[in-house]
Amino acid sequence: MLSEFDLIARYFTRQPDPTGRVRLGVGDDCALISPAAGQQLAVSTDLLVEGRHFFAGADAAMLGHKSLAVNLSDLAAMGARPVGFTLALALPEVNENWLAAFSRGLLALADQHSAELIGGDTTRGPLAICITVFGEVPYALALRRDAACPGDDIWVSGTLGDARLALAVLHTTLSVDQQSFEAAARHLHQPTPRVALGLALRGVAHAAIDVSDGLLGDLGHVLKRSGVGAHIDADALPVGTALAQQTQSLQRHFALNGGDDYELCFTAPVLNRQAVLAAAAASDTRVTCIGKITADTALLVTDQYGQPLAIAADSFDHFKNP
Amino acid sequence: MLSEFDLIARYFTRQPDPTGRVRLGVGDDCALISPAAGQQLAVSTDLLVEGRHFFAGADAAMLGHKSLAVNLSDLAAMGARPVGFTLALALPEVNENWLAAFSRGLLALADQHSAELIGGDTTRGPLAICITVFGEVPYALALRRDAACPGDDIWVSGTLGDARLALAVLHTTLSVDQQSFEAAARHLHQPTPRVALGLALRGVAHAAIDVSDGLLGDLGHVLKRSGVGAHIDADALPVGTALAQQTQSLQRHFALNGGDDYELCFTAPVLNRQAVLAAAAASDTRVTCIGKITADTALLVTDQYGQPLAIAADSFDHFKNP
Repeated sequence: MLSEFDLIARYFTRQPDPTGRVRLGVGDDCALISPAAGQQLAVSTDLLVEGRHFFAGADAAMLGHKSLAVNLSDLAAMGARPVGFTLALALPEVNENWLAAFSRGLLALADQHSAELIGGDTTRGPLAICITVFGEVPYALALRRDAACPGDDIWVSGTLGDARLALAVLHTTLSVDQQSFEAAARHLHQPTPRVALGLALRGVAHAAIDVSDGLLGDLGHVLKRSGVGAHIDADALPVGTALAQQTQSLQRHFALNGGDDYELCFTAPVLNRQAVLAAAAASDTRVTCIGKITADTALLVTDQYGQPLAIAADSFDHFKNP
Repeated sequence: MLSEFDLIARYFTRQPDPTGRVRLGVGDDCALISPAAGQQLAVSTDLLVEGRHFFAGADAAMLGHKSLAVNLSDLAAMGARPVGFTLALALPEVNENWLAAFSRGLLALADQHSAELIGGDTTRGPLAICITVFGEVPYALALRRDAACPGDDIWVSGTLGDARLALAVLHTTLSVDQQSFEAAARHLHQPTPRVALGLALRGVAHAAIDVSDGLLGDLGHVLKRSGVGAHIDADALPVGTALAQQTQSLQRHFALNGGDDYELCFTAPVLNRQAVLAAAAASDTRVTCIGKITADTALLVTDQYGQPLAIAADSFDHFKNP
């Protein structure tokens, strides 16, 4: 049987960081890292638990991808460039096939973003994955939640509600054709962190957040911290082809409250519209303007004719949704 | 019922960091931190799982203390000064009494070390605590595992084996008087991270590691990475008063292989003996010289007469000790 130390060595030891920002990695009491001159280190942590964030028996490679993707998404929402991450893993048993697939999925995404695995911890226990991610951003250019201004356009990247659609199919509360399901399931299992867009939005966007718990709930955090309100046009919400085939009511519900989207929701001054579109083009990412920041503190959702919709913010909450 | 967001706000929101190293804390997608000029950021992560690292029903305040202490111990072993930490918490339910006690124990220790809680994540799940800790150290002064040199003295802080003694009593494989048990149990439940000693050993010690999995196993990591061996005098091992009342054989076994000590094991050149003692005095920490680093790669344990003992390194391994 592999020991804990063998495990770490076999699956998670990487080559040294070529950029020199990581001075000491896996294998000492601590890793040593430093942001480049003039940069802050952006830090975020996420804990994924079996049965809560993923199904028992979830594909290990996809789980490795998603575990890191949800963390990189936080860096993206800050406009930060990935540097590295730590991985703490509780495993019910040592299953080498599982570990090989998990590390393959994890490290493939890490390599795409030049994020180095700098340290970790493994233990026996109910399957849980805790990643803490590090990125760099100049302080003045960080995309903060408290920076939305009245009059700002509100934008989202990609499409919303796809992951929620896939979940509904998996829960057999909805049925769609196989091709539509597979397209939606990719959003659920292998989200694309919008790192390139986040970087391109430095100096262009005001506030940003990643949509992990549902658009209305996450936008609500931006509004609260910025002391502003918003007016969202429900008919402008971008949805994927599978969701577009559903009823308008379901489209709106999943797009507004779905969760697990890992798209960026950001605000930018009207004068920066062309710059936003240029950032989207430069990062090869679709963006859609879905509303405006308002000077009051209400979150209003209307159809394209301005008729208010009775839609409550139903942000995903791990303790309210057992 | 408290929502996830209420939880974070109520128990884990702190006042802003007065030192200015943390520019943005809990409540955004990422925290923003930066080491002071000339310093590296030391990073370590530990995942504690119920039934593995602590008993079901463990005292929440002590668990809060210990969760952070084991991480601060990693900073101490690097000679790093604590800056902050992230906390990811999986909880089976929202129990406000538990949360209040946990955060009290956690934050009291954090305050002692000026370590700021900069971010986190909470979810429902089997009780698990993942902390990632950040400290500062100048690169050239970091106490690395690969820096032991032949001829170095080997030192340990405090006493060894106390936590293992308490565990044996809890497992009813050993019986001691109540006072002895309580003294030993403090080592198990409320270890003191040797942060002040680690800082005082900058420029004095060569290599260091914290003893979490047992002295021989942890020292073995230092030897392997430094490409050296060691000669340990078993009769020099410092043990607490409770363990000192046990048989010599049990004393040696618990001191050499006990685990959960969270003492520092470090090496220093013979010329620095006075400096080591001065560092110990300055940090009000007992230190004991227990052996020498050798030029071969063997780990030899002898009694005071130089007779070799047949003691295998039995380092705690979360997958070998189910």
